[in-house]
Amino acid sequence: MNKPDSRRPVAAIIAVGTELTEGIRDDTNGAEVARLLVFAGFVPKRHEALPDDRAILAARIAELTASHDLVIVTGGLGPTHDDLTREAAADALGLSLVRDPRLEARLRPVRSRHRLEQAREQVMRQADVLQGATVLTPSSGTAPGQLISAGIGHLVLLPGPPHEMRPLLAEALETLAPGRRDTPWILGCVGISESDAQVIAERTLDQHADIRLAMLARPALVDIVLIDEGAGESGLDVATREIADALGQRCYATDGATLAEVVLREARRRNLTVAVAESCTGGMVAEELTSVSGSSDVFLGGVVAYSNRLKERLLGVDGEVLDSFGAVSQEVAQMMAEGLQTSTGADVAISVTGIAGPGGATPAKPIGTVWFAAIASETRRAIRHEFPGDRAGVRARATATALDLLRESVLSPRESFR
Amino acid sequence: MNKPDSRRPVAAIIAVGTELTEGIRDDTNGAEVARLLVFAGFVPKRHEALPDDRAILAARIAELTASHDLVIVTGGLGPTHDDLTREAAADALGLSLVRDPRLEARLRPVRSRHRLEQAREQVMRQADVLQGATVLTPSSGTAPGQLISAGIGHLVLLPGPPHEMRPLLAEALETLAPGRRDTPWILGCVGISESDAQVIAERTLDQHADIRLAMLARPALVDIVLIDEGAGESGLDVATREIADALGQRCYATDGATLAEVVLREARRRNLTVAVAESCTGGMVAEELTSVSGSSDVFLGGVVAYSNRLKERLLGVDGEVLDSFGAVSQEVAQMMAEGLQTSTGADVAISVTGIAGPGGATPAKPIGTVWFAAIASETRRAIRHEFPGDRAGVRARATATALDLLRESVLSPRESFR
Repeated sequence: MNKPDSRRPVAAIIAVGTELTEGIRDDTNGAEVARLLVFAGFVPKRHEALPDDRAILAARIAELTASHDLVIVTGGLGPTHDDLTREAAADALGLSLVRDPRLEARLRPVRSRHRLEQAREQVMRQADVLQGATVLTPSSGTAPGQLISAGIGHLVLLPGPPHEMRPLLAEALETLAPGRRDTPWILGCVGISESDAQVIAERTLDQHADIRLAMLARPALVDIVLIDEGAGESGLDVATREIADALGQRCYATDGATLAEVVLREARRRNLTVAVAESCTGGMVAEELTSVSGSSDVFLGGVVAYSNRLKERLLGVDGEVLDSFGAVSQEVAQMMAEGLQTSTGADVAISVTGIAGPGGATPAKPIGTVWFAAIASETRRAIRHEFPGDRAGVRARATATALDLLRESVLSPRESFR
Repeated sequence: MNKPDSRRPVAAIIAVGTELTEGIRDDTNGAEVARLLVFAGFVPKRHEALPDDRAILAARIAELTASHDLVIVTGGLGPTHDDLTREAAADALGLSLVRDPRLEARLRPVRSRHRLEQAREQVMRQADVLQGATVLTPSSGTAPGQLISAGIGHLVLLPGPPHEMRPLLAEALETLAPGRRDTPWILGCVGISESDAQVIAERTLDQHADIRLAMLARPALVDIVLIDEGAGESGLDVATREIADALGQRCYATDGATLAEVVLREARRRNLTVAVAESCTGGMVAEELTSVSGSSDVFLGGVVAYSNRLKERLLGVDGEVLDSFGAVSQEVAQMMAEGLQTSTGADVAISVTGIAGPGGATPAKPIGTVWFAAIASETRRAIRHEFPGDRAGVRARATATALDLLRESVLSPRESFR
């Protein structure tokens, strides 16, 4: 099914900044750029963080452009003295830098904000481009990108801040691999293992020799990514639909939406409000929902009932039930959801209570035991899971599973208890 | 104050895995390893992600060991066919692999769990070490690390999973740079800008020529890191105390504790319980507190009152006050904290309500406007902030600031309104 890698163009990514090589800041661009390169048909062979050092950068750009079809450099395009990517690229390719009049005009208002001559001149360095380069003009920020033939293929220089980098990378890839979509064909899945998802996808793709498969897994979530190897948009659309059908309810989105976005969208469509009572996830489910702008019309809020005292006081859980069954039990999960619905008046109320560890486990309830309950209309659901992993892993899985339960409850609020 | 970099040994880091180069998984080791190298006196000059490709890996290990005092390789030491770091290192250094009897004995129980001869043999590959290498024996996991002289310095091979990598890296660094502490000298700061923190630290360090400074900034938080250049433990302790004195309340920890850990520790020491009412942070403050294991004795929980409806129903905020002053106001913040204290009985109750954007701003209340209120004993505090940044940035800053307010309220519950 997969074409051999050797037939596809190879790429390298360089992230520039001493703060990256010294571990002071994480490189958040590398993985994102790599993914977009994969979607655009490239095979990323390496990504490297290099310091703000003109000689090191120049040497590496020369080496990598000689052996890669595409080299992407992010960072080091700003105005300060340690922004040296432009100069290093010029050294590497034996080109001079020329000041672009259109960029110069664009920078003049910024320049006039500075008083010192040195600062004014520094601003204008951002108008310097490699001789013969295509300028990628920024919509935000002041640093432009550049695209130029180099070595056996192309060199692309991009600014470091992610929101400045993204549109310019999209522009560069549109030039280098025209017709590729920014949003690739992704099937977001929940409640299914990576290997099961892969088997289902591969079975469908047996009929589509011109589509390559990549799997991206996070705790309790799997993305199935379809990469175009000649199938074209319609071929990818067909395959996406076929795989989605095979996955059924396990596929929550084929348009790149997050699970929280799907919950909010489907609830909004049905005019339903939702609320969440959290114990072991301690606010993570609410955080996911509120990370989506404009969620307050659907998501009322919730209670983080971390202690038993709050389970009683804010959610009306019976102290005797807590004593007899323990905080991590079907009974308490259901009382939490019921109490939440009563106090908030939400159409759909869910609860999460579990043992994230490392303390709190018993033989009957090992670390990773989590009870979920949901109330929608007159319907009640409850599920028990036993998640693997450490405290952070259990909490992440419980969060995704709670969002999935919320999604199910919103999609079919009248389905019976299972 | 700073010694020139050229006098310190340089290091390179390689993270192995096609899932890293293709952006399928983030390299989480690189930055952590880089930081520990900095603390141990090395200057990390580059870190690179490379695919599971023996030839590419071997070529790069040979190149980097020829020009760096220390090369650290993480990943590719497991049992499967795409774990090729051992073989690549052997190719690079012109050494053969020898099976270590002690490791062999250690792996035998694992081996016997597999039925297929191929799988059994694969397990034993993890006992193969470079001729002459020092074995770094794992406490968890099956893959050992290796340390060997190579090129102009040393090569260290480490397993990829962070919890397996960490202790072996510590062991390697203890051998290469003996006497270094695992926990470096860090002053955690909140409510101060990176540049102000740096100025204060530099002023103190004028008296300590043998200490180098590094700054690590996250939204609303700054870490001041002191790096030993000959000062020794006692010199670093003195400098840490001096800088902490100069920072006053802005320094929340000198022992590497997080702000949430400090809140919980100080509250526990004073036998105080705490609760949180969140609007714009939507559960993030609760998440930070509950990410600390064993927090439930101090942190009761809270309310995510994202909608006005829940501010009224769960926190007893007066609907007329909401209408007159708006949800983002001192009045509502205070009523949220009061309502929370009444309903939870917590000793210390705080609230957060703000405009994270992109919607919801008015001329008087731009995006980033956040009100905080706190009640401890009979004392009431309220603060208004205007944070820069996008939705995620505002929420992160508001979370750190809420934790800081919680810390202040716990430390001096009887201090008057400011």
